Amino acid sequence: MRAVELIQKKRDAGTHTREELAFLVSEFTRGAIPDYQMGAWLMAVYLRGLDAAETADLTDLMLRSGEVLDLSDLPGLKVDKHSTGGVGDKASLIIAPVAAAGGVLVPMISGRGLGHSGGTVDKLESIPGFRTNLSLPELRQALTEVGCALIGQTQEIAPADKKIYALRDLTATVACIPLITASILSKKLAEGIDALVLDVKVGNGAFMKDEAQATALAESMRAIGTRMGKRMVALLTGMDQPLGRAAGNAIEIAESVETLRGNGPADLTELCRELSAWMLHLGARAQTLDEGRQQYDRLISSGAAAQKFQQIVAHQGGDPRVVDDPKRLPQARLGADWPAPAAGFVTGMQTERLGWATMALGAGRLRLEDAVDPAAGFLFHKKLGDRVEKGEPLLTAFYNEERKWDEAKRWLEGACEIGASAPVVPPLLRKTLS
Amino acid sequence: MRAVELIQKKRDAGTHTREELAFLVSEFTRGAIPDYQMGAWLMAVYLRGLDAAETADLTDLMLRSGEVLDLSDLPGLKVDKHSTGGVGDKASLIIAPVAAAGGVLVPMISGRGLGHSGGTVDKLESIPGFRTNLSLPELRQALTEVGCALIGQTQEIAPADKKIYALRDLTATVACIPLITASILSKKLAEGIDALVLDVKVGNGAFMKDEAQATALAESMRAIGTRMGKRMVALLTGMDQPLGRAAGNAIEIAESVETLRGNGPADLTELCRELSAWMLHLGARAQTLDEGRQQYDRLISSGAAAQKFQQIVAHQGGDPRVVDDPKRLPQARLGADWPAPAAGFVTGMQTERLGWATMALGAGRLRLEDAVDPAAGFLFHKKLGDRVEKGEPLLTAFYNEERKWDEAKRWLEGACEIGASAPVVPPLLRKTLS
Repeated sequence: MRAVELIQKKRDAGTHTREELAFLVSEFTRGAIPDYQMGAWLMAVYLRGLDAAETADLTDLMLRSGEVLDLSDLPGLKVDKHSTGGVGDKASLIIAPVAAAGGVLVPMISGRGLGHSGGTVDKLESIPGFRTNLSLPELRQALTEVGCALIGQTQEIAPADKKIYALRDLTATVACIPLITASILSKKLAEGIDALVLDVKVGNGAFMKDEAQATALAESMRAIGTRMGKRMVALLTGMDQPLGRAAGNAIEIAESVETLRGNGPADLTELCRELSAWMLHLGARAQTLDEGRQQYDRLISSGAAAQKFQQIVAHQGGDPRVVDDPKRLPQARLGADWPAPAAGFVTGMQTERLGWATMALGAGRLRLEDAVDPAAGFLFHKKLGDRVEKGEPLLTAFYNEERKWDEAKRWLEGACEIGASAPVVPPLLRKTLS
Repeated sequence: MRAVELIQKKRDAGTHTREELAFLVSEFTRGAIPDYQMGAWLMAVYLRGLDAAETADLTDLMLRSGEVLDLSDLPGLKVDKHSTGGVGDKASLIIAPVAAAGGVLVPMISGRGLGHSGGTVDKLESIPGFRTNLSLPELRQALTEVGCALIGQTQEIAPADKKIYALRDLTATVACIPLITASILSKKLAEGIDALVLDVKVGNGAFMKDEAQATALAESMRAIGTRMGKRMVALLTGMDQPLGRAAGNAIEIAESVETLRGNGPADLTELCRELSAWMLHLGARAQTLDEGRQQYDRLISSGAAAQKFQQIVAHQGGDPRVVDDPKRLPQARLGADWPAPAAGFVTGMQTERLGWATMALGAGRLRLEDAVDPAAGFLFHKKLGDRVEKGEPLLTAFYNEERKWDEAKRWLEGACEIGASAPVVPPLLRKTLS
């Protein structure tokens, strides 16, 4: 088999056999197929597509390029959740402890911030002492003892995906549904899970701005996961404004704790209730979705979910006192309000710009070598459809460096649109594909 | 400007500005854009295309990546010819001296054998002492003194093309009309010519097997060359059987000399007469094409063309006696006939297979490091439509190593098709785009 013939086949819209994909994945991963051939193949895939069988094979081969967890000896179903990312999306920090408190095992491997979007791992690391770099044996131990582990990517999981993703980023082949599907699922299914809840964001703060595209991605992931023997559900949810009121790291941990105590913002609570219900249902701890929702309410009101979060933090070396006293989280030295330029209603939020503003403030990395400031972030006082007076603060920024606030202000300029009449706010939960 | 954005633009079927193409060509040539990005871009170009303005810009930028000859101080028009290659195509060896004898200046830079197709430079080097590696000042001197120079690719001409071509070969992006156009024209127009005669081969021994594809390539090259201020003509000619009777190196030189003396095979003579007429016409040495044809006849019958070839050989260090006595060319030690398996008519020749057989016999390189055997080659006794008796030789092979003849025989098997009734032989000259 020769790489150039496989490139040619995909270029001419041919369909790869599993053996051909196995050759491409294994030879590329071990460095025997050069980057320039893989780059040309990725572009051919971007423009010609992969069918369901090819996508499932590619996913499976990437998954098998590294270690695959076998958690079958642990009793009960293992369920994870994946979000395609957005601004203020801290749902994982809430639903993982809820599901674990409900008896589902949650082996959750998350990413860092990417582009304008925050990352669960960066948020967790704002908790003093919290270790996201558990080894795979430590992850297994955490599941046994706590029922949940929240960790970052490891070298052992899906090395083919790491190498292919790095190349996609440089060859304009990221936004390709079969390749996104294989990338996400190869990492998630290597966790040894039985079921996966997908939260596919759609809107001006999501990677997929358009509902048709987001639906196609959700459909693809659901179909391929199902084909690979997993219980799958995909929710399409809105990302036309930041989720909840906080965007940053420590500030999102604080909001997550409030939400776990039942005092969270309405939109975040609504989303977490729905996602948790699905995790409990797919994890066979709730017979119906509605029973799952009721369990969510009980686990929150009883304090069981917040307590589970505290257990997780303690088990992973973090300071568990932050759950009772979020003031122990890193606090910024400086703060400033961003006033409304006019009176009226919030008619639009340019969510991606708000994400970039959050990164610029220090909450993420604009360059790979940047350090994350755990205390930097925004608190949004106004949401879509809210009334606002001229000069009233739309948001408050927390930061440690004036020059970063100056940089963030450039992104904020015009990002919140004020109009004379109240807008129609789209629903948060758009579609469920199950 | 960032390479990834330019890849993305072409991926999404955008149109590049000249500045964008200049960035890609210059940064790639100096090594600042890595091969994997160029590979992805080339695949995007393959699948999305380049329009005429982009192709002309790319050609011009590749041409300017190296030295561009300025021959404007030499009086008279400079005309070259390019063939897309095939089996037994020695037309350059005939028409260059004819045109030069007719007063046209011919600065001809040719290639070596590629794939199943022979190369003019390999053929010339079978003449003892012949130097194809003239420097650019030596080329200019040859034009002044002899009116023609026949040389190989130099490092100075279009280095961007060399680097891009090497990558195209490995990324399945060779068979792309705008990229072929830019590759051919960037090298040819760097010769400082005023006009170019294109011989685009079509048929089972050509790179373009299909007439629509060949026409599209001919149209593209003609259009882009015209746009760049050159007088252009493109002929579509048949390559459904080897051209003439000889395929190899020394053996093709011998056939060229015969043709220059007026004793060549009918098909080769017909093609050379037409191409020469166009060179003389575009070079302003014949007012009409018909006058060009008549001049061809005169230059052949007077001996002026053969004498010009002898002058060229002598000027470039070759043994001029080969023109009067072709037996002085390298001769093979061994020979063998290939008999017809049945009586009937030659109804088909798998010309590409015959080309590979010629290479296998030693006349070309199957691997880059192979040495070319100047004496190896075939003499075809039968052409399409000829009657043949069972056991009568279809061709004779000349070679120096039995194992190469064994290898060549594997390609010959079934390459000449014999049928019961005479086939309709397609015309050699198919189309003229002027």
